Amino acid sequence: MDTKGSSLLPEGAKARLVYLSLKDEIADGRLADGDNLPGEQRLAETFGVSRVTVRRALDALSADGLIERRVGSGTVVRANGFGKKPVAMDFTTLMPQLVEMGQSTTARLLSFSYGPAPDFVARAMKLGADEKVQIATRVRSADDRPFSHLTTYVPETIARNYSEHDLATTPLFKLLERSGVHIGDAQQSVSATLAGPEVAEALEVAVGSALLSLRRVVRDETGKGVEYLSALYRPDMFRLEMALTRVGSGSSRHWEPAIGKTEADVA
Amino acid sequence: MDTKGSSLLPEGAKARLVYLSLKDEIADGRLADGDNLPGEQRLAETFGVSRVTVRRALDALSADGLIERRVGSGTVVRANGFGKKPVAMDFTTLMPQLVEMGQSTTARLLSFSYGPAPDFVARAMKLGADEKVQIATRVRSADDRPFSHLTTYVPETIARNYSEHDLATTPLFKLLERSGVHIGDAQQSVSATLAGPEVAEALEVAVGSALLSLRRVVRDETGKGVEYLSALYRPDMFRLEMALTRVGSGSSRHWEPAIGKTEADVA
Repeated sequence: MDTKGSSLLPEGAKARLVYLSLKDEIADGRLADGDNLPGEQRLAETFGVSRVTVRRALDALSADGLIERRVGSGTVVRANGFGKKPVAMDFTTLMPQLVEMGQSTTARLLSFSYGPAPDFVARAMKLGADEKVQIATRVRSADDRPFSHLTTYVPETIARNYSEHDLATTPLFKLLERSGVHIGDAQQSVSATLAGPEVAEALEVAVGSALLSLRRVVRDETGKGVEYLSALYRPDMFRLEMALTRVGSGSSRHWEPAIGKTEADVA
Repeated sequence: MDTKGSSLLPEGAKARLVYLSLKDEIADGRLADGDNLPGEQRLAETFGVSRVTVRRALDALSADGLIERRVGSGTVVRANGFGKKPVAMDFTTLMPQLVEMGQSTTARLLSFSYGPAPDFVARAMKLGADEKVQIATRVRSADDRPFSHLTTYVPETIARNYSEHDLATTPLFKLLERSGVHIGDAQQSVSATLAGPEVAEALEVAVGSALLSLRRVVRDETGKGVEYLSALYRPDMFRLEMALTRVGSGSSRHWEPAIGKTEADVA
């Protein structure tokens, strides 16, 4: 199945929104395989759009293999229209569980430059005034399907130790440690955002699709920022996972991360 | 400032998308305070819409206080137009850091029933055939602004030990443990999705807004599911946070979660 949003999008912004919302509900399991979809009239009322609009959205879902329309007996969800399982990343190790899933990833460098850091990066990294950073944007794909759009900021003094080629072939962590950086700690924050035109094109999704957004500041042992990562992920291809165990007893009972086996470091 | 999306939305699905995309970029720091926004013509080309559409989107951002339009000198981002800091939840403790931020939250019960579990819930919880669950949907607000839409599934045999009133006033964890459940472990997964009409209304955002989505299965010591949570969060009001420390030495150097102080349990 072709999971590229762009080739299957219905015409019209309203139809696209209905299409993307229903697709998300199916990907997310809120609409499960075999479920009946509400009728066209009901969907039109719920979304506040015309039946023609609903029909265009359903046509696209049907072309995706995500629903099956049966004359007389309504529309049934076919969740197995979604292909492979998404790439899972363990939130406590910063490492995708790729080998486990039999997947390999490749990175493509979209842009690479040196210049001043945006304000929010300079603040988070505690950069000196006028301190330049290397700004690199990469798209990472699993089995040739793009799943992450990664923009990294690294102080120029560190980044000059590796090349554009290194960046496309070697995980950034390794390049930092090879450059003599002593990584101390990291702070990460996860949110959600909509795909703007440039990111949508790189990730092969429709403008306005939901993306998982991750910000990470990595600091050295003195507390100075050595890497700032701004990552956007396709939710149909990527999930953050975390296992927790309840330990202790009585009032000191609490959660602890249960760290699984991880295989590759690709941030 | 009024951060309710619904009262400020521009007319037209395309203008809404441009508005929501730019608003996300500002909330996310990709467009920082003081940055110049590209011109109307440039934005129109980037999004593939008309200048009239761009202007409607900018009018709404301006009404939100998120941009300032200056005659002759372009449009400047005013990121401080966003009010309070979002609620932060530590991903390793399942607990929002609320007291720290001087916030209190309240829950409102939207629906409450007993019935069969959806397939994806029954599978994840390893429920027996025909085993009924309590299905409850709550909206949680901080300082009267809704930030999370929580649907929980609990096996009927456990859920009969507490009331609708308990659910609106007491964290579910406490109710489960009070019911004699021995919580063993949990698995959580984070993704992103678009707000459909019902959730959008409950969270006071526009249909098609990006939402952070979290799924959690909590199991007892025998491995049987005792709670399934499907949570949707407003990204402008909620973030998952996690601090990591790099420990060990040589080839055994790895990340470990640095668990901070947490104060309240509100899942």
